[in-house]
Amino acid sequence: MKIAILGYGTVGSGVFEIVNSNAEGLARRAGQEIEVKYVLDLRDFPGDPVEKVLVHDYSVIANDPEVDIVVEVMGGVEPAYTFVKEALLKGKSVCTSNKELVAKHGAELLEIAKQKKVNFLFEASVGGGIPIIRPLNQSLTADEIEEITGILNGTTNYILTKMRDEGLDFDTVLKDAQAKGFAERNPSADVDGFDAGRKIAILTSLAYGSQVDYEDVYTEGITKITENDIAYATAADAAIKLFGTSKSVDGKIYAMVAPKLIGKEHPLYAVNDVFNAILVRGNFLGDVMFYGKGAGKLPTASAVVSDVVDAAKHQGVNIMTIWSNKKQQIADKATLATKFFVRVPEAEKAAAEKLFKIEKVMTAEGVTGEFAFLTAEMAEGDFEKAAEQLNVLNRIRAEL
Amino acid sequence: MKIAILGYGTVGSGVFEIVNSNAEGLARRAGQEIEVKYVLDLRDFPGDPVEKVLVHDYSVIANDPEVDIVVEVMGGVEPAYTFVKEALLKGKSVCTSNKELVAKHGAELLEIAKQKKVNFLFEASVGGGIPIIRPLNQSLTADEIEEITGILNGTTNYILTKMRDEGLDFDTVLKDAQAKGFAERNPSADVDGFDAGRKIAILTSLAYGSQVDYEDVYTEGITKITENDIAYATAADAAIKLFGTSKSVDGKIYAMVAPKLIGKEHPLYAVNDVFNAILVRGNFLGDVMFYGKGAGKLPTASAVVSDVVDAAKHQGVNIMTIWSNKKQQIADKATLATKFFVRVPEAEKAAAEKLFKIEKVMTAEGVTGEFAFLTAEMAEGDFEKAAEQLNVLNRIRAEL
Repeated sequence: MKIAILGYGTVGSGVFEIVNSNAEGLARRAGQEIEVKYVLDLRDFPGDPVEKVLVHDYSVIANDPEVDIVVEVMGGVEPAYTFVKEALLKGKSVCTSNKELVAKHGAELLEIAKQKKVNFLFEASVGGGIPIIRPLNQSLTADEIEEITGILNGTTNYILTKMRDEGLDFDTVLKDAQAKGFAERNPSADVDGFDAGRKIAILTSLAYGSQVDYEDVYTEGITKITENDIAYATAADAAIKLFGTSKSVDGKIYAMVAPKLIGKEHPLYAVNDVFNAILVRGNFLGDVMFYGKGAGKLPTASAVVSDVVDAAKHQGVNIMTIWSNKKQQIADKATLATKFFVRVPEAEKAAAEKLFKIEKVMTAEGVTGEFAFLTAEMAEGDFEKAAEQLNVLNRIRAEL
Repeated sequence: MKIAILGYGTVGSGVFEIVNSNAEGLARRAGQEIEVKYVLDLRDFPGDPVEKVLVHDYSVIANDPEVDIVVEVMGGVEPAYTFVKEALLKGKSVCTSNKELVAKHGAELLEIAKQKKVNFLFEASVGGGIPIIRPLNQSLTADEIEEITGILNGTTNYILTKMRDEGLDFDTVLKDAQAKGFAERNPSADVDGFDAGRKIAILTSLAYGSQVDYEDVYTEGITKITENDIAYATAADAAIKLFGTSKSVDGKIYAMVAPKLIGKEHPLYAVNDVFNAILVRGNFLGDVMFYGKGAGKLPTASAVVSDVVDAAKHQGVNIMTIWSNKKQQIADKATLATKFFVRVPEAEKAAAEKLFKIEKVMTAEGVTGEFAFLTAEMAEGDFEKAAEQLNVLNRIRAEL
């Protein structure tokens, strides 16, 4: 079985390494040897073992009938979309780690794969090395999915963990993360929640079988989380995590990315640093959780290679994946019930007590001049109306 | 697609309930409607909806060509083995939750299924509702598996959690668990580790592709864990968990069931009560963890029904599973390196200090008259030889 890798960056070079290092085990599990025939990259890599198979022109790959599987690990929508579509139309299976591509064109590419009796696989697009796409598609099939909640972005989880453990503010930790290569120079996709938004859109599309546009997912990042917020969390034995969440409530589907204050008993409480974890709740199954490294060269490449093995095992057979291009309506979050952790100036204590049903007053060491509390569960719309009447310092959704 | 359920006990009635309640979703995901045509049980269930499909004679099912899938949830090796083998030979797929059957005859039944182009699926046999068999078989295929460590038995995890949280001794908690139905009247299979032993044998067979006989798995239960052991664990911010573990070290495969003292940073530290979790370490992937309810009627039934959906999707196509009946040698644990937590009478402190390289002296509130310590990592065989020269009160393997 001959494969081609599009892109010799972090993940692409990891795929090349794994296919070469674990060749024997892969051959056993795929039922045949797997060989990298081409690697596509615009750059040259003098002295790198990839030199022997490096090409600069995609048409060499597209037009070679010996290539059965194309691994797309370039990232970004174009030219990935054009290349992947052409490969599928030419009867090649495609394995990708590209969440932008999958979130935007997943339904269409799956449909082409089905018609051509090949496969479009994207295990690495969510949760890096954590198996979640295949389990959602093939293991959690007995249940109606009631909720998916995940820590889907390693960079923001690293930042939040570090802010808490070392008492540092957001900007300081972000700079440190950038220096270490954990955060990009333009960190917006991570810290504003867009990366997690694409991932929860993919998971929700798979869970309910129709297209969730990530533009419809309400997205709130972590840039407004302050040292004071974290001081309250720590005092309450709680943690602030950035969650991508979707829920099915009374036939309506909600989807959102937002920070959440969670207690020690929450299964995602102990997921720290760059780790990711995804909790899936089924109507009979209850909660299951998947945990591991959500990013990084080798874990992500490992997930891509597991797709290659699956594609090799399913030559000529399309693996059924239910994700139609019918648009999934995302319900207005105004009707979604949740608790809020709220901080207002001390002078507004009486007003806050009138406006909200307060479940618990919160305190934090060294924080003065403000009144902080946890509301009872209430509709997001009602919360917003009430909050408008106060000078809210910050509010974070809570599950405490 | 017509199915038959063998056994209308806890899991069987759960399967019946899920197939009837989630019918629409199952039909969508399986590509066809799924209907329970027969339920086999020796008992009658007057007034129960199962009455209409109840039969007492297996030959009715075996000889009905309309039945494509047989769900075996009776437990025990016989008559399950005879029934399952007959079903497969007659070209029916089989889905089972029966760990005794799978551990003993898995390789043979998989081979028959392959020859007959049907499927033998057993997701529910390990970890209840947690997807682990299918991920091991289909998702973690890029890596060489270096280690599998699991909390595989909910009863013992419940007992250990309760002993710690309420400061009770083993016998008291066991009686309470029996009264609540969490432990069986004859608790040996759970508390002596045999149940976990069958499960780690199944996982290890799948990870390395050849037959691990559970009789070859060294098995130690939790009956010797005392309140004092737990007091030391708590003082060290550690926990004692019953692990089923297998490891590949320098080409040798080790497998064992034994309690282990683990620290707060261990990914399985926070797995409490009846929950199960399984950690898998790949050579490129690093650690991934799967967590959920390891037992119970509906979670287990959910896993069985996910197998039914998979079998329905793969009619006429055998899902490749590598588990040959070639015997897997299990290496002698004498050569396996580990740390030990050891307690000896105070009078033997000097002797212990001579015999062992002590990494840390351990203390516990209210425990006197003894000397407790953590050894450096050492071969199990060397440990045993040294321990023979002391009057060891207890020793527990440790990862601290």
